Amino acid sequence: MNTSIILRRLRTFVAGAALVALAGCAGTDTLRGSGDLGLIIERATGSIQIIETTGRTQLATVKGLGDLSHASAVYSRDGRFAYLFGRDGGLTKVDMLKAKIVKRVMQSGNSIGGAISQDGRLIAVSNYKPGGVKVFDAGTLDLVADIPAIDADGNRSKVVGLVDAPGQRFVFSLYDSGEIWMADFSAGGAPALRKFPDIGTLPYDGLITPDGRYYAAGLFGEDGIALLDLWNVDAGVKRILDGYGRGEQPLPVYKMPHLEGWASAGGALFLPAVGRHEILVVEKESWRELGRIPVHGQPVFAVARPDGRQVWVNFAHPRNDVVQVIDTQSRKVIHSMKPGKAILHMEFTPRGEQVFVSIRDADKVDVYDTRTFDRLTTLDARKPSGIFLTARANRIGL
Amino acid sequence: MNTSIILRRLRTFVAGAALVALAGCAGTDTLRGSGDLGLIIERATGSIQIIETTGRTQLATVKGLGDLSHASAVYSRDGRFAYLFGRDGGLTKVDMLKAKIVKRVMQSGNSIGGAISQDGRLIAVSNYKPGGVKVFDAGTLDLVADIPAIDADGNRSKVVGLVDAPGQRFVFSLYDSGEIWMADFSAGGAPALRKFPDIGTLPYDGLITPDGRYYAAGLFGEDGIALLDLWNVDAGVKRILDGYGRGEQPLPVYKMPHLEGWASAGGALFLPAVGRHEILVVEKESWRELGRIPVHGQPVFAVARPDGRQVWVNFAHPRNDVVQVIDTQSRKVIHSMKPGKAILHMEFTPRGEQVFVSIRDADKVDVYDTRTFDRLTTLDARKPSGIFLTARANRIGL
Repeated sequence: MNTSIILRRLRTFVAGAALVALAGCAGTDTLRGSGDLGLIIERATGSIQIIETTGRTQLATVKGLGDLSHASAVYSRDGRFAYLFGRDGGLTKVDMLKAKIVKRVMQSGNSIGGAISQDGRLIAVSNYKPGGVKVFDAGTLDLVADIPAIDADGNRSKVVGLVDAPGQRFVFSLYDSGEIWMADFSAGGAPALRKFPDIGTLPYDGLITPDGRYYAAGLFGEDGIALLDLWNVDAGVKRILDGYGRGEQPLPVYKMPHLEGWASAGGALFLPAVGRHEILVVEKESWRELGRIPVHGQPVFAVARPDGRQVWVNFAHPRNDVVQVIDTQSRKVIHSMKPGKAILHMEFTPRGEQVFVSIRDADKVDVYDTRTFDRLTTLDARKPSGIFLTARANRIGL
Repeated sequence: MNTSIILRRLRTFVAGAALVALAGCAGTDTLRGSGDLGLIIERATGSIQIIETTGRTQLATVKGLGDLSHASAVYSRDGRFAYLFGRDGGLTKVDMLKAKIVKRVMQSGNSIGGAISQDGRLIAVSNYKPGGVKVFDAGTLDLVADIPAIDADGNRSKVVGLVDAPGQRFVFSLYDSGEIWMADFSAGGAPALRKFPDIGTLPYDGLITPDGRYYAAGLFGEDGIALLDLWNVDAGVKRILDGYGRGEQPLPVYKMPHLEGWASAGGALFLPAVGRHEILVVEKESWRELGRIPVHGQPVFAVARPDGRQVWVNFAHPRNDVVQVIDTQSRKVIHSMKPGKAILHMEFTPRGEQVFVSIRDADKVDVYDTRTFDRLTTLDARKPSGIFLTARANRIGL
């Protein structure tokens, strides 16, 4: 064993010991606010790291969360409990203050995301296998509703793009049958289901605008986006950005973009194009295309800084070692950086002064000052992917 | 002493004992998330009630906060500490989890509001006497900067409309000299001051749009609003809504409206008119008037539900026993209620499903479901005025 390996192991041991000590601090002995907490998904080890964004430190590690590839999380309205959605169908409730698992249920064979209801009482999970949405009591994780995604022809579909909407509703898309469904739990008991068929081919993800009004589903099978105005659902789903160009010069798509990103600067939204090295700029309300911004590769996430002045973009394999920053006023790339290979996610603090960037292959999460682009610190993490801060508890659709 | 008085005193005693017991629960013995906490100002007794919005209960009372008429509060980024700005110039830091005062300083003779910096490290207080802004370390409450509001002619002015803005800035208005000032703390140390004189006569309050881009100061001395684009400060302050009608048929103004309210539904802002029984509807970006909505009286607050679908309005004396709800899509009043005399404030939970309404003369705070308008519960409070939830910690300009 050479010196560098010994030093590395020693470093790992000391870091581990520090985390154990910190886990104690995060427990019942120490009172603390939950507003600046967050978690980092460690996808390879089925663990999460609990962090805080004021001092930018790691507080504890929680293990035993199953397969966390493509995992995501939502938070209870008090910011104390995280609900994690694992690829293996596991739904896990974690106490962020005690740094331990409260309850874990295997709710399906293969899940890809979830949402929490406006009142915080219901947790919805969207599933690939078997395709559908299951809804659980946020307190007990008892099953409250099971919504199989079966279309009029009897075919079962994968469910994608699940979001919460105001009025105790969940909205989601059926990938195989090309439908948007809305489940309304406002009356209590079984949900009222409203189905919008024939929205287009292969919706692959959905977003809800930050005000909770518009649900947009990106289509993989054809050019365009399906749009539902939740204030006027009787008007049905309409098509926007028809033929925006994916068909023109299709590039290989190694990873589906996510539609979580948006910015409303100057009344515009910024969306990753599919199969193109571009960000689409779309006018809100009219939903017409205002322009395109050339970027480094196939964008995966295009996430707005909370003030809407910047959009940070990461990219699909093999160009996934770069982050670019777009100024939304000039609509130009104003900064590029290469922090390491496999940049998987970016999460802003709620008032936007910092951004946390996970760099999977470098086993680290970098934290940047969004004004100066200075790196503020680096946190060690094992194959980090998603980063989720408790501030999401206060947001519609996250 | 008759029976009703005895019963009333007994009720007060039991309520007090319950609060003492609850204060114990909120203390170090019980771990809890801070994301669903809030406080109610009890203006007559110099106290606050700590509440939570999940079960809608009162947790504790904190006393000894001085003169809390026209008081307001901001929160630390972890949601644990409240900073209260009292009319007597007192700045008090309260631990929301332990329900006790951490520190209290008398920072001036007469203050009217404050703000917390984007990074959470600075607390700014705007003062009437002596006019200016003082800035304190959020941890220690030590004075960091003193900014006397003295114009080019050497006259000192009251300061109003103080807000935080992205980039570690504070923006505020000089009531007497008619100026907007921006103090930039991003470099650390002493702030860089930028002054915009001649913005109009008697700015009485200011708002910042939720994205932190536009600062608007309402003018009491003339018709119109002064607007500063913080993304393009070199362009200076411009006048919008010139001659919007206050001069036409001036009505007596018993209470100055607040400009905290806004809604961005359909790209519009909703503002209380001064001296008129109307809400002004203004187009974002262009800032031209789109219309006016007749309401019950002189509006004080016009606050948007977080999804922008509704605007709730309260009114100045003597018509202050009514709350009206405007639907922002139809721009019509869709609901009116008379919960009691002297309705002083309305605060939405961050995802908008509930609203807390303080009714001073009835010694209560009503909580309503914003979808059904059902009253969910009533909390007893002594002469309640402002209501401030910890979710404000995550918002720009609040």
